[in-house]
Amino acid sequence: MPEPLDSLRRLVPADRIVTDSDVIASYAHDEAEWAPYGAPAALVRAGSTEDVRAVVTVCAEQGVPIVPRGAGTGLSGGANALDGCVLLSLEAMDEIVEIDAAERLAVVQPGVVNDALRLACAERGLWYPPDPASAPWSTIGGNVATNAGGLCCVKYGVTRDYVLALEAVVGRGEVVRLGRRTAKGVAGYDLCGLMVGSEGTLGVITEVTVRLRGARAPEHTVVGYFDTLQAAGEAVAKVTAAGIVPSALELIDRHCLRAVDAWRNMGLSADADVLLLGRTDLPGESGEAEADAMARLFKEAGATWSARSSDEAEADALFAARRLAYPALERLGPVLTEDVCVPRGLVPEMLTRIEAAAADTGTHIANIAHAGDGNLHPLIIAPAGDDAARVRAQRAFDRIVADAIALGGTVTGEHGVGLLKRRGLHDELDPAVIALHHAVKDALDPAGVFNPGKVFGTP
Amino acid sequence: MPEPLDSLRRLVPADRIVTDSDVIASYAHDEAEWAPYGAPAALVRAGSTEDVRAVVTVCAEQGVPIVPRGAGTGLSGGANALDGCVLLSLEAMDEIVEIDAAERLAVVQPGVVNDALRLACAERGLWYPPDPASAPWSTIGGNVATNAGGLCCVKYGVTRDYVLALEAVVGRGEVVRLGRRTAKGVAGYDLCGLMVGSEGTLGVITEVTVRLRGARAPEHTVVGYFDTLQAAGEAVAKVTAAGIVPSALELIDRHCLRAVDAWRNMGLSADADVLLLGRTDLPGESGEAEADAMARLFKEAGATWSARSSDEAEADALFAARRLAYPALERLGPVLTEDVCVPRGLVPEMLTRIEAAAADTGTHIANIAHAGDGNLHPLIIAPAGDDAARVRAQRAFDRIVADAIALGGTVTGEHGVGLLKRRGLHDELDPAVIALHHAVKDALDPAGVFNPGKVFGTP
Repeated sequence: MPEPLDSLRRLVPADRIVTDSDVIASYAHDEAEWAPYGAPAALVRAGSTEDVRAVVTVCAEQGVPIVPRGAGTGLSGGANALDGCVLLSLEAMDEIVEIDAAERLAVVQPGVVNDALRLACAERGLWYPPDPASAPWSTIGGNVATNAGGLCCVKYGVTRDYVLALEAVVGRGEVVRLGRRTAKGVAGYDLCGLMVGSEGTLGVITEVTVRLRGARAPEHTVVGYFDTLQAAGEAVAKVTAAGIVPSALELIDRHCLRAVDAWRNMGLSADADVLLLGRTDLPGESGEAEADAMARLFKEAGATWSARSSDEAEADALFAARRLAYPALERLGPVLTEDVCVPRGLVPEMLTRIEAAAADTGTHIANIAHAGDGNLHPLIIAPAGDDAARVRAQRAFDRIVADAIALGGTVTGEHGVGLLKRRGLHDELDPAVIALHHAVKDALDPAGVFNPGKVFGTP
Repeated sequence: MPEPLDSLRRLVPADRIVTDSDVIASYAHDEAEWAPYGAPAALVRAGSTEDVRAVVTVCAEQGVPIVPRGAGTGLSGGANALDGCVLLSLEAMDEIVEIDAAERLAVVQPGVVNDALRLACAERGLWYPPDPASAPWSTIGGNVATNAGGLCCVKYGVTRDYVLALEAVVGRGEVVRLGRRTAKGVAGYDLCGLMVGSEGTLGVITEVTVRLRGARAPEHTVVGYFDTLQAAGEAVAKVTAAGIVPSALELIDRHCLRAVDAWRNMGLSADADVLLLGRTDLPGESGEAEADAMARLFKEAGATWSARSSDEAEADALFAARRLAYPALERLGPVLTEDVCVPRGLVPEMLTRIEAAAADTGTHIANIAHAGDGNLHPLIIAPAGDDAARVRAQRAFDRIVADAIALGGTVTGEHGVGLLKRRGLHDELDPAVIALHHAVKDALDPAGVFNPGKVFGTP
């Protein structure tokens, strides 16, 4: 039987193939600490579409699973190694190929880091909106593979809304271009949109063309302190019901504030049990009015303190704390990350159910949330090595998933299914819909080599 | 061999099945006058999802093609009958099921007319943006099937951007729900988005959940008169390059203005050879400034006259003329409708090439365009019964398609492929991409009954 490594060595430059087991081990999983991972056969750090084509061709011929990955910041195990797989890292393909200001688009290789693209756009007066909290590290390829969300989604949509075209290696090694460079287009099926969020199960993305927006007006920030999660949730529901579409609306609870304080000594947890951060980027007086309205609605919902931030440096520090919440909590022990999304008006109810799940299972649950679009991230923490705590955490996780589905929500708002949410996916989707997934997967991956078993595989 | 009609009569209420040949004939084609159509076996006017399920089940069992249709306003022949098909009209399923102001979404049956939904939303201070020129007649189901565009796409996107969820009858009669009601969600493939724009080839849509926006600020209108298409095209390029995103930017040439005048006596063609209509809906002073900037850029591009409209009734009349252009031209003879879309900056070049195609082929070509997103509608007119003119018109059509592809554009920006653009689709897409389409089609339509041969079938 041919060995994939022997064949790859004939097709891929030697310095692109990594066999050092310590290095391979460091690439074998993403940030989903609870998801299992296997032992890869090899790691290829692709430097070109041609390298990717070679890997796909060899693996399709020999039936070897391919696990593509970007920076490995995923939170669902989507990039975790399978036994005997070829790990295909795209991080070295990190060139910004083109930024076209007049057509408001950029063409990038998949390994470009999100913040690097955002910075390059900003230098030209342009803006690439999708801003996952992982933006300083995560890559556009990974963002596209998971259809990543972020803080500004509540107003500006998710990664899929910005992907105009893709180059991908599919099937048994065909290089295809999907989508278009024009503002509109309906020539054929939206296979480009289908690839977005498919978590590496339909092919490997080798180039991305994204839509850009013009730079926006400076944001106004509104800060609210609350004594309870429910009151903060009510504030979110009130903002939504008032027809306000903030440019961000983030919730951070006391557990997260304390974790950030313990790490970075920011002194946040002294004042508030729950912090709600709203932003508006409407220009001029409209922005002032919208910020004032949010501050008033926070108060009406029971904020103990609420005001427009007069100091944008302070406001930025609060948002930085929001982005640091996850790594700060990880320092306290393995974190089982939830990502449920419920209708906006049911945010208070879902927060209540999360607290009940924590109490009933005896688990420690911290909360951060893209509250404005109903996307909650309860973070379930279990001390390392405590097996009983781990069992309780898994029980809380399953209960939160079930509650989200019961409220008409989804098991994953932006992190993806990967390995952690496969059971939830089967709970959420009808068997007839799962059958459609299998039909599409089998049709587009005839060799069955693209990240097999992830997303909708049998849990 | 069983007859589909006999089986249908056992499953569908009698008053839903139409066999009157005159009535059937009136449903046998859409507005694409040049596209061929066949003789249907029957017409079913579905009243419920159950009726649709019955039709799909019977047709899948018996291998009978199903051609779904809404109002029949399509311009590519996508709803044209195939010989022996069951025409499945969804127009009677016209209930607005729900408008949820807090969650900013609406649930509608596919036969709801676009303007009816927009009106119902407006009464609640909400806005459903997609506004094809056919909005007074076309249905949401048809809009979804073709991923319809419209005037406001340049700022607010197309139908797909507003479809949150669908109910559809697929495969051999399975009723499935795709998508979600939450603001975000990445549980599985975007099969909902895949259905949008699939022109009835993957199933029949029986319910649509759309995302809504809040009512927006009143628009300011800017009117520009130009002597040449090129000058108007330059104005479009200048507006784009200045980073302005108008809420509409429409072009109407002298042929269209004259046709509207001849029909409705609006007196438009006396003043301008080419009319450019810009709009902005930025609130307050920002809107005033953006309108002034557009008027200035129109002048810089060579407008013979350009100004902000001080009279919104007059502005509305100009936009009404824009919407009337197509039916006005149809009165002059069979219209072969183009729908190419090119990068915004290449609008002047594409307009030049269209004029050259008209001159070189000796055809009469009128132009309307969603100029702001590069989506041009050259309308090729051939007198009825003049076979030589028809040959010349087809030559002009093919040349415009080739030019659009050469400029990095697409053969269809918003009308869909249907029958008319099948050859163009094969010119635009790589054979490997066509193969992916066939794989998806075969996977999701195992009985091969959903609008077979449309879109990417062999021309």
